[in-house]
Amino acid sequence: MTNQTALFSRLTSILADESRTPLYKRFATAIKDAVREGMLVHEEILPSEREFSQLLNISRITVRKAMDSLEKEGVVLRSRGYGTQISSQFEYSLKEPKGLSQQAVLRGKKPDTVWINKSKIHCSAEIAEKLGLSIGSDVYLLKRIRYVDEQAVSVEESWVPARYIADADAIGISLYDYFHQQQILPVKSQSRVSARMPDEALQQQIALPANVPVLVIKQLAMDAQGNPLEYSISYCRSDMYVFIAE
Amino acid sequence: MTNQTALFSRLTSILADESRTPLYKRFATAIKDAVREGMLVHEEILPSEREFSQLLNISRITVRKAMDSLEKEGVVLRSRGYGTQISSQFEYSLKEPKGLSQQAVLRGKKPDTVWINKSKIHCSAEIAEKLGLSIGSDVYLLKRIRYVDEQAVSVEESWVPARYIADADAIGISLYDYFHQQQILPVKSQSRVSARMPDEALQQQIALPANVPVLVIKQLAMDAQGNPLEYSISYCRSDMYVFIAE
Repeated sequence: MTNQTALFSRLTSILADESRTPLYKRFATAIKDAVREGMLVHEEILPSEREFSQLLNISRITVRKAMDSLEKEGVVLRSRGYGTQISSQFEYSLKEPKGLSQQAVLRGKKPDTVWINKSKIHCSAEIAEKLGLSIGSDVYLLKRIRYVDEQAVSVEESWVPARYIADADAIGISLYDYFHQQQILPVKSQSRVSARMPDEALQQQIALPANVPVLVIKQLAMDAQGNPLEYSISYCRSDMYVFIAE
Repeated sequence: MTNQTALFSRLTSILADESRTPLYKRFATAIKDAVREGMLVHEEILPSEREFSQLLNISRITVRKAMDSLEKEGVVLRSRGYGTQISSQFEYSLKEPKGLSQQAVLRGKKPDTVWINKSKIHCSAEIAEKLGLSIGSDVYLLKRIRYVDEQAVSVEESWVPARYIADADAIGISLYDYFHQQQILPVKSQSRVSARMPDEALQQQIALPANVPVLVIKQLAMDAQGNPLEYSISYCRSDMYVFIAE
């Protein structure tokens, strides 16, 4: 959906501004802003160094330095013969619940998951209703932060009826691996996807850049017999995630 | 997910602020902010007038005036015996492509659709790839703004291979009704859902409140034989829409 004219007019005005920030940094920031605002979309091929240089009247060295820094930050991918491309987002797909780690590794990045809560609580009215329990029943609240290259990319909260978890300490990186070990096969039944700006509590955990909303993905997973197994709410950086339904 | 304590502490500090804005207006604004930030969630039941009045040490008349104004704006629903509830969002469901108008009517609201573009163009590389066409092939670009009670709630752009549209003027409110008249039955094949803050162009069309992101829903629809029929990008107010996948 790129409007090349709009992009170049934006870049021209940013580069013309008097500023003590080096030109290549302002150029790189402008590209990042254009991605965040949707003026440049994920997987889009950028104009070549030569085109940028000619159209913006800046040196090719400046363009190259900007692209170097954008590549280091993971904003663009460069490949010989194919040009420079805006990085694609991680896909939150209904088909592959374990996708993030695999996707990160495929891109040469290091995924990590840190549990910040695994506790047995009495469930609220809302969770009781989702899981088909009486209010106050025992459930496990499981909360983790997922990282890629040490940057927080999502926060996930799950509520699981206590009877499905014999030993919370035995849950490793993947809750689903734990379920599989017990011969429980969760199936996602419905996903509700919305978006909002992060509140303060989330901002403290995930430290989003200004102006980046979170995708809020609420899901109920059931076992093969239709018994509710897990209700989860994931908060995902919208500049790094796209939700896929097929 | 409401943290009642956090909500009340927020409300207390807002109401304690010295300000010339009437108390009930500040109270109403604080409730709207809490919804936008996810502190109050859609369909949640609010504390009663009496509870708000006692806990915040304000008069029940102030609470009632705030709720009256929130009800007029469609932020809350009130029903006898059931209490005051945060309005639910419109659902963008894969199962019901015509859902918005019906949902609006069910709530006593007036839906409307305004076409702002119906033109035959040569398709870009990106659209060509999505629709399986050669670059520059004839496609219809169809763009409409959807309104509920005269407030813009979404902007939808569609690209359709020209051979499926004999007469663009014959397309009424629903593109799918037009397809059905030609015995074409579109099936959505994949949806990609992301979020971002609106850019200037979108902001001009949809006039979002500050701090409200848009859900960006990209979909490909095919006919029963698997031929691409329509590629669409919908930009939906995230405070009014939730995307549902089942």
